[in-house]
Amino acid sequence: MPGPVKPVSQDRLAVQPLPFDAVVLSPDGVLGAWQQVNAAATLPHCIEHLEKSAALANMRGAAGLEVHAFEGFHFADSDIYKVLEAIGWEAGRSDVGRFLPFVDRTIQLLGQAQQPDGYLNSFYSATPEKQFSDLRWGHELYCLGHLLQAGIAWARTTGRRDLLEIGIRFAERVEEEFPPGGRLPVCGHPEIETALAELYRLAGEERWLDLAVRMVDARGHRSVGPDRFGYGYFQDHEPVREVRGATGHVVRQLYLAAGVADVYTEAGDTALLEALHRIWSDVHLRKMYITGGLGSRHRDEAFGDPFELPPDRAYSETCAAISSVQFNWRMLLLTGEGRFADELERALYNAVAGSISPGGTEFFYSNPLQVRTERDGEHEQAPARRARWYDCACCPPNIARLIASISSYTATADDDGGLQLHLYDPARITLPAATVTVATGYPFDGRVVLKIDGTLTGVLALRIPAWSHAFTLRVDGEPQSLDPENGYVRIAAMGVAQVELKLDTSVQLRQPHPHLDAARGCVAVTRGPLVYTLEQTDLPDGVLLEDFVLDASRTLVDAGRDAVLGVPLIRVHGSTRARPAEPYPDAAVNFAISDRISANLVPYYRWGNRGPGGMRVWIPPASR
Amino acid sequence: MPGPVKPVSQDRLAVQPLPFDAVVLSPDGVLGAWQQVNAAATLPHCIEHLEKSAALANMRGAAGLEVHAFEGFHFADSDIYKVLEAIGWEAGRSDVGRFLPFVDRTIQLLGQAQQPDGYLNSFYSATPEKQFSDLRWGHELYCLGHLLQAGIAWARTTGRRDLLEIGIRFAERVEEEFPPGGRLPVCGHPEIETALAELYRLAGEERWLDLAVRMVDARGHRSVGPDRFGYGYFQDHEPVREVRGATGHVVRQLYLAAGVADVYTEAGDTALLEALHRIWSDVHLRKMYITGGLGSRHRDEAFGDPFELPPDRAYSETCAAISSVQFNWRMLLLTGEGRFADELERALYNAVAGSISPGGTEFFYSNPLQVRTERDGEHEQAPARRARWYDCACCPPNIARLIASISSYTATADDDGGLQLHLYDPARITLPAATVTVATGYPFDGRVVLKIDGTLTGVLALRIPAWSHAFTLRVDGEPQSLDPENGYVRIAAMGVAQVELKLDTSVQLRQPHPHLDAARGCVAVTRGPLVYTLEQTDLPDGVLLEDFVLDASRTLVDAGRDAVLGVPLIRVHGSTRARPAEPYPDAAVNFAISDRISANLVPYYRWGNRGPGGMRVWIPPASR
Repeated sequence: MPGPVKPVSQDRLAVQPLPFDAVVLSPDGVLGAWQQVNAAATLPHCIEHLEKSAALANMRGAAGLEVHAFEGFHFADSDIYKVLEAIGWEAGRSDVGRFLPFVDRTIQLLGQAQQPDGYLNSFYSATPEKQFSDLRWGHELYCLGHLLQAGIAWARTTGRRDLLEIGIRFAERVEEEFPPGGRLPVCGHPEIETALAELYRLAGEERWLDLAVRMVDARGHRSVGPDRFGYGYFQDHEPVREVRGATGHVVRQLYLAAGVADVYTEAGDTALLEALHRIWSDVHLRKMYITGGLGSRHRDEAFGDPFELPPDRAYSETCAAISSVQFNWRMLLLTGEGRFADELERALYNAVAGSISPGGTEFFYSNPLQVRTERDGEHEQAPARRARWYDCACCPPNIARLIASISSYTATADDDGGLQLHLYDPARITLPAATVTVATGYPFDGRVVLKIDGTLTGVLALRIPAWSHAFTLRVDGEPQSLDPENGYVRIAAMGVAQVELKLDTSVQLRQPHPHLDAARGCVAVTRGPLVYTLEQTDLPDGVLLEDFVLDASRTLVDAGRDAVLGVPLIRVHGSTRARPAEPYPDAAVNFAISDRISANLVPYYRWGNRGPGGMRVWIPPASR
Repeated sequence: MPGPVKPVSQDRLAVQPLPFDAVVLSPDGVLGAWQQVNAAATLPHCIEHLEKSAALANMRGAAGLEVHAFEGFHFADSDIYKVLEAIGWEAGRSDVGRFLPFVDRTIQLLGQAQQPDGYLNSFYSATPEKQFSDLRWGHELYCLGHLLQAGIAWARTTGRRDLLEIGIRFAERVEEEFPPGGRLPVCGHPEIETALAELYRLAGEERWLDLAVRMVDARGHRSVGPDRFGYGYFQDHEPVREVRGATGHVVRQLYLAAGVADVYTEAGDTALLEALHRIWSDVHLRKMYITGGLGSRHRDEAFGDPFELPPDRAYSETCAAISSVQFNWRMLLLTGEGRFADELERALYNAVAGSISPGGTEFFYSNPLQVRTERDGEHEQAPARRARWYDCACCPPNIARLIASISSYTATADDDGGLQLHLYDPARITLPAATVTVATGYPFDGRVVLKIDGTLTGVLALRIPAWSHAFTLRVDGEPQSLDPENGYVRIAAMGVAQVELKLDTSVQLRQPHPHLDAARGCVAVTRGPLVYTLEQTDLPDGVLLEDFVLDASRTLVDAGRDAVLGVPLIRVHGSTRARPAEPYPDAAVNFAISDRISANLVPYYRWGNRGPGGMRVWIPPASR
């Protein structure tokens, strides 16, 4: 049973995904528990909101089942597809019987809304003459991409193909619309590229890979037409092979990068791989928040300039962090290098995880690293509390489909019987000749114990994250002295029954790169992969978050689990700093420091769950 | 000959404007020279672009003189009006004969485009059923405001009334559309309030003041309707008397504040004055860049939260700084307090002055305090070089009308024969019984010499700006020891022939308020009212602006005049700091400092005139 990414060609892969059902996460782990919440709460919540948001009504209107003028964003169909995809993956790991009436009804509806020629898009169904007329903003191919991915999920986990067939019929219509030598098939929002690659993988038909290749090649010739956001927004400013870095709308850029990685995996061409490395480096060395969040601009949801990373106005869209997981996963498959897993982990445990409430039914669209205690600007896309839904509802179902399949991203295999562990969460990994049981309190506790029943014939590779400054390793009780290579320690696993890895999850202080002006003079507190944050609610009454300065010389310690959030806190010590009356005082003035106080920091991914109020990841130290 | 603001009621005024022709600036001064450039270059440039931008073609279309589908922003009429207003003020100080063919032709055109019922707006002329249907975005009353102000300028400086009559006919149509007790007359973009107050002042008809009062009272009841930007954007979220501070779109907020100040001046109600003080304090203590620029958000051109002031993403629209000049001027008239003149000066000499090229034909729309040397986001509203025009062309003609009348803002009088000097520029001030000649090299040189021919019977008040930490004063050669009161030193002027004031324009280093996170750990270099800035072009080859750190312990000195820019520079000393390979290194790491280097800073208002490249006002010191 293949999962969301299942390459056919092995030529360019360093490691390969495991079957979807090979990894079963335990509900005791952070990721495993999240899968439980996703199935129990997030999926029903999404289904409910497909109706409330009119996404389904739009589709019934398109099917002629009711009189309904289209409502919402014109890509609302994709919300339906992402929910169906999420349930499809969930069907591979648990009983989804309670969702089947919705699934059956919705697939039937899609079949009714599909036009005889295969076209399917509820926004354009009443105006056939406008179909494919506005590739820049129309999102028709984007929606098709999500439709295909939903169909693929169901086909892979259950063998059910009715949804896939609907997608294929629409894909055939698209193939017809954009024959070789004709109009360039450049959708303003990339997404279909990776879906077509996956369709090729599932169906085994070269035509879909060919179409994906043509779409990658078509991009960069300014065929989307002029727009106030510029060509870079759509990644149509220069051909993929020539890009110098990451540009424009973040989700568009990284969905495209994932698609290019898929195309490169199957069809080769090192110029594509080199372009992917340039994009990756630009993103991860110069344009990424410490939370793994991406995109500093509200105006056009874009990366912005290198090191333009304001914590307060971080756009850091949830979908952007999800797209980073997808891109990094593909780069990890291609290279086997731990830095890609490190960045996947950073995005997952911070920017993605923080976007959803513990209960699974409230969401952030934007994930800032600072919220001032006093706010009076407008913040509709970036509220200080999670909202139950958004007019532009791309994020909630995107989380749902990622989490339903998150077990796929934890481990890989290679041709020589090797197993690579990337994310550590309590799990059972079933391989042809062995079962590996992972026990750990990760990410709060760096101890990971593997029990191997049966025989692993190849090399067992365990990721040593870059944040872990030290580690110890025991194999069957014997201490090992191994250096990690490309982010992994490698053990000849034949005959091994138990491995114990202890990573260093002690509290760390980090500083921003000197070019990252917006966080200059501040520190961030991290622990393992987790970024911690200070909330107004954790300061003593009368102490304003904005006046707090950290005493970095005093030890930061584990402060035990928070009763409400259920996660370990970190206790910090500091003071408050006096405020001047004027905004731009003489530089020689030092503002008095007083009131030694202590406060607990919470993991960033749990901020905003205990009442409104300020929050900040970057904290100024008392020294300045 | 009255100038742009001419109150009727003196009851609530501390000081009064001088007649428009009382102050003649010398072409040798910074402001006087700017008036020369404005007349010689900016006005012809604006006229040329009214044609190029289709603003005039839209009006010809509305007049039925040509077949023309409306082009551009739907408030493009206001560009025409602002240019006419600018020429109107210029007509009060120099011969504008060369512009008269354009003026005559355009006024005739407006008369032809005006409908029989008085309505005049080229965007709505083809669709009379839509007139006044979209007050939120339609800008009809906003455009009328600018039309009235243009008519008032011509009537005041030349007695010519044809343009004014067109405006009055439209105002009568508006009065009819919004009778008392009917629909609330809330335009989405304030501007008409101050124009109606001025029309009342000129025409002496209470009806216009009444209409202005009704418009102020109508605001804050959410009558503009829901919008993605929220009610605060339009200042329609709470009644004017209840506002807690400055909210939403900056230009809208401060045009409204200016209008409220005019209404308060004429009609009283201390609740309005108190609201104005709350707005003023919120803006100037918490939401203002050190350049006087306002508005930190590109998305909605809004203030943002308190202390949300990113230098790189400063929106700081030129029109926002102009609106600050207008608001502060009215507060100065009401209070006579120097802090309002200080802020008027800050905005004028930095944010406004920096928005235009020395030649007067290139403009910034957005005035950031930092431009990275390497940029790859989209920057169409915030290019690193000034542009000749903008699709949304509000700024260039707004500068033109301000500068054509800037002499009005330099001095005031009071009922007791007193004279108050607010802005220091070489000038001749003609009063009923005396002529005052001002000689100075301000703002670079703090020495100001006044010669009084004739007799000043009242108190002469000279502003001592808050930035001047010391000053000396001689009256007829005799040193005086006076303390400033409310920002002014006051001299009994009877019999005085010469006054010499020396302000302290030595170089200063300033730091940001500790809540201003985006500039933490940096200093800004100022001199008198001027903010200075470091440009990449002034660093040695191979030294990247982003690597430069300032040695604040070494004396900063005047570096003489720049040959190209013609302004004094400031020499600073510093080093470069090494860059880490990773974006978030351990906080304990110190990055090596090396390469002692020196560089010249230029006044902010002259940045971006010597080739593209990075710029930054806030400079990190070597200590961190």
